Amino acid sequence: MTDTKKKLAITELALRDGHQSLLATRMRLDDMLPICEKLDTIGYWSIEAWGGATFDTCLRYLKEGPWVRLRELNKALPNTPIQMLLRGQNLLGYRHYADDVVKKFVDMAAANGVDVFRVFDAMNDLRNVRTAVNQVKANDKHAEGTICYTTSPVHTLEYFIDLGKGFEDMGCDTLAIKDMAGLLTPTATRELILALKQSVSIPLHLHSHATAGVAEMVQWEAVHAGCDIIDTAISPLAGGTSHPPTEAMVAAFAGTEYDTGLNLVALQEIAAYFKEVRKKYARFESDSTGVDTRVFVNQIPGGMISNLANQLRDQGAQDKMDAVLDEIPRVRKDFGYPPLVTPTSQIVGTQAVLNVMSGKKYKVITNETRDYLKGLYGRALGEINEEVRKLAIGDEEPIDIRPADLLVPELDALTREVGDRATSVEDVLSYALFPTIALEFFEERASGQFKPESLDTPLEASSTPEVVTAPSL
Amino acid sequence: MTDTKKKLAITELALRDGHQSLLATRMRLDDMLPICEKLDTIGYWSIEAWGGATFDTCLRYLKEGPWVRLRELNKALPNTPIQMLLRGQNLLGYRHYADDVVKKFVDMAAANGVDVFRVFDAMNDLRNVRTAVNQVKANDKHAEGTICYTTSPVHTLEYFIDLGKGFEDMGCDTLAIKDMAGLLTPTATRELILALKQSVSIPLHLHSHATAGVAEMVQWEAVHAGCDIIDTAISPLAGGTSHPPTEAMVAAFAGTEYDTGLNLVALQEIAAYFKEVRKKYARFESDSTGVDTRVFVNQIPGGMISNLANQLRDQGAQDKMDAVLDEIPRVRKDFGYPPLVTPTSQIVGTQAVLNVMSGKKYKVITNETRDYLKGLYGRALGEINEEVRKLAIGDEEPIDIRPADLLVPELDALTREVGDRATSVEDVLSYALFPTIALEFFEERASGQFKPESLDTPLEASSTPEVVTAPSL
Ligand SMILES: [Co+2]
Ligand SMILES: [Co+2]
Repeated sequence: MTDTKKKLAITELALRDGHQSLLATRMRLDDMLPICEKLDTIGYWSIEAWGGATFDTCLRYLKEGPWVRLRELNKALPNTPIQMLLRGQNLLGYRHYADDVVKKFVDMAAANGVDVFRVFDAMNDLRNVRTAVNQVKANDKHAEGTICYTTSPVHTLEYFIDLGKGFEDMGCDTLAIKDMAGLLTPTATRELILALKQSVSIPLHLHSHATAGVAEMVQWEAVHAGCDIIDTAISPLAGGTSHPPTEAMVAAFAGTEYDTGLNLVALQEIAAYFKEVRKKYARFESDSTGVDTRVFVNQIPGGMISNLANQLRDQGAQDKMDAVLDEIPRVRKDFGYPPLVTPTSQIVGTQAVLNVMSGKKYKVITNETRDYLKGLYGRALGEINEEVRKLAIGDEEPIDIRPADLLVPELDALTREVGDRATSVEDVLSYALFPTIALEFFEERASGQFKPESLDTPLEASSTPEVVTAPSL
Repeated sequence: MTDTKKKLAITELALRDGHQSLLATRMRLDDMLPICEKLDTIGYWSIEAWGGATFDTCLRYLKEGPWVRLRELNKALPNTPIQMLLRGQNLLGYRHYADDVVKKFVDMAAANGVDVFRVFDAMNDLRNVRTAVNQVKANDKHAEGTICYTTSPVHTLEYFIDLGKGFEDMGCDTLAIKDMAGLLTPTATRELILALKQSVSIPLHLHSHATAGVAEMVQWEAVHAGCDIIDTAISPLAGGTSHPPTEAMVAAFAGTEYDTGLNLVALQEIAAYFKEVRKKYARFESDSTGVDTRVFVNQIPGGMISNLANQLRDQGAQDKMDAVLDEIPRVRKDFGYPPLVTPTSQIVGTQAVLNVMSGKKYKVITNETRDYLKGLYGRALGEINEEVRKLAIGDEEPIDIRPADLLVPELDALTREVGDRATSVEDVLSYALFPTIALEFFEERASGQFKPESLDTPLEASSTPEVVTAPSL
């Protein structure tokens, strides 16, 4: 051991991506608070505990104030930075928001307890994250720029380096690689990290889903190539579509020059706690908690395949699955190879289904496809198929500006609109993001009687997630 | 890619250790045969499909002829070597056997379809494996010498190298490292493999249980250090106390110089098959299929801890668990640091329980402890605590010869004893290994009416596995 010992840092995902991946985002604050004191002693680099799908789920199903959750967690974790996942200009909602809403949202998240903001855009369009990142820095908080990792003929190492530099130039404090589909192999990871390390000087943070069973090796190689921080989930919320187990990664690096210094026995106690908690959410367990390597064959994220399977089953067209899986890469190519993550995964997937079901490519075109091809989600990295674009928007010119530049300030209007049903700025923001369910939530709150979904009754047939829509013109 | 491309070889464990680890060894031949044609096209180095606990389970619970199973698998897998796990002089039974029984058993296993014999001894005492290994070679089959991996002050790299050389000198074709407790870390693995590679010229084969969630990284490092063959289980029978998922390891090495060349899509089809099969055995699922890193804290295999917990619960002494876990390393030290694997894990564990429960160390001493300290299981690597030995066997001299040298030939006597209830040499061997249940099995077979345990009714309270006893004098 030398003095140059390089401690590996760990972000714990139990309170956000762990249960979002494995338990339909259903974990309640009541099951988090009892373990926070112990979590807070561990010495994590951060605990991801807010954002992603949790905000929506809190309002919609748990009838739990998302801002209350954040404040409570902030009180319960005084020594550990709280991390959130933020979809850039899209925040946590279903459309792009005007800059004034984005700024206020970041202000309030910071004020209520978020320390680390992981900011990404599905198109990797830096223009869609700049407002959020700037506002994080204006609040003196930690901004983590985030590359959505994918593979395609245009997603070269050079491209990812440029993107990383873009985030660094923007003032980001760290750079995350978000491998939502679990596409990274150990070898690809080594190459990517080595390349980024040569060109980007801010610390690197790896987030790679364990779906295909290779994420532990991916992290092992990443750390040896210079990655500074890895994302793990305590073992009862690890594996499958979630992430490598915290204890396993801590044990694997123990005694090496990357030793995390985290206490394995304390982590085992946390694991024992969450093992019991998980049982309460049995009705939200998905059928696919095992290893699934299909992403290496067809490059399509596992979650997207399940959604498509549901869509096709609803239409009695299960037999079209293979045709749809074959069509997806073609649509993705026509669209200039967007990463497949919310919302692009839904846009590409739905269009592929229509291309197959209608018997003719682009005979039926969704509004989301139209918006996408207009440029309303941002700029694609690859070339758009101009024939397809013509079919979708005719002679209309696609936009070349930042999509949110089309939006006028909207906070005042939203504030007036919601009126005294909102009791705080945070309420207005909840209303901005999820108008209908926020109003329902406010109403239940005012009545003194929340009606959360039950943990006991069987889960209703899963519905396809809503599509994030582009700003309407 | 160069011409020196070094293909990584894979042993598939689905048909033996996979279900032994996860489904109490209960998988039936009927659930294996339908997928054999596909398994046989993969190009595995071997398929482990016999031995271990399967022989006992076939006779005891499934009422399935273990020799019939072997012949059927051999017919169904014409292109793939069938591998078995053999406990040296102990074969698959509960005591040491005379050499004539060991030789005949190997002859019959070879004749009925075993191609690769993985031979180990719990004490790593080469004298306990020599008869079996020689007989494998006499049958022109593949002998795999096996190191039981453990950690202790006396288990040095030099020791493992000597042991490996001992197996090589004995004529073994490959050398396996059997990490039954999942104690190997990636770094320890790298050191071990590099050291063995320098001194042993036969190919290395790694078997490391995934209990602690680090086995994928262990294999990744092992292969880069020169390991030639790794043990994996198709994903629905992987993870937890089993092994790394086959598809994940194949995907991880794909495109590297260690590419296995195995077809990922074909493996996914096999996985889909076993995913359904596993559901049939739900009643045999253990509660601990997740990641458990406690072995890195106390060096005690997970399976041993569950057995001890059962023992203590039966005696209403759950509160003694911590005391027992503290006592185990002390007993193990007194015993000269045996690896903790059947039967040594039971001997050490039971003695530790008695030391705690009786309130005084070695106040009560089991027959197995006595036999162990007499040398009847073989030679311990470390020094035996002579005070403890004196307490156990008084002034009696421990033996210094090979334990089986105390046994006279027994095959003829066994043959006479079982008489015409046995209809073949194989039957005599079944009777030699499991006298009581073999006779029951023969009786049911003669009556034309097997009574296998049901797959539907709830599992009875798990009983502690029988202890393998030393040869009685
Ligand atoms: Co994620
Ligand atoms: Co094993």
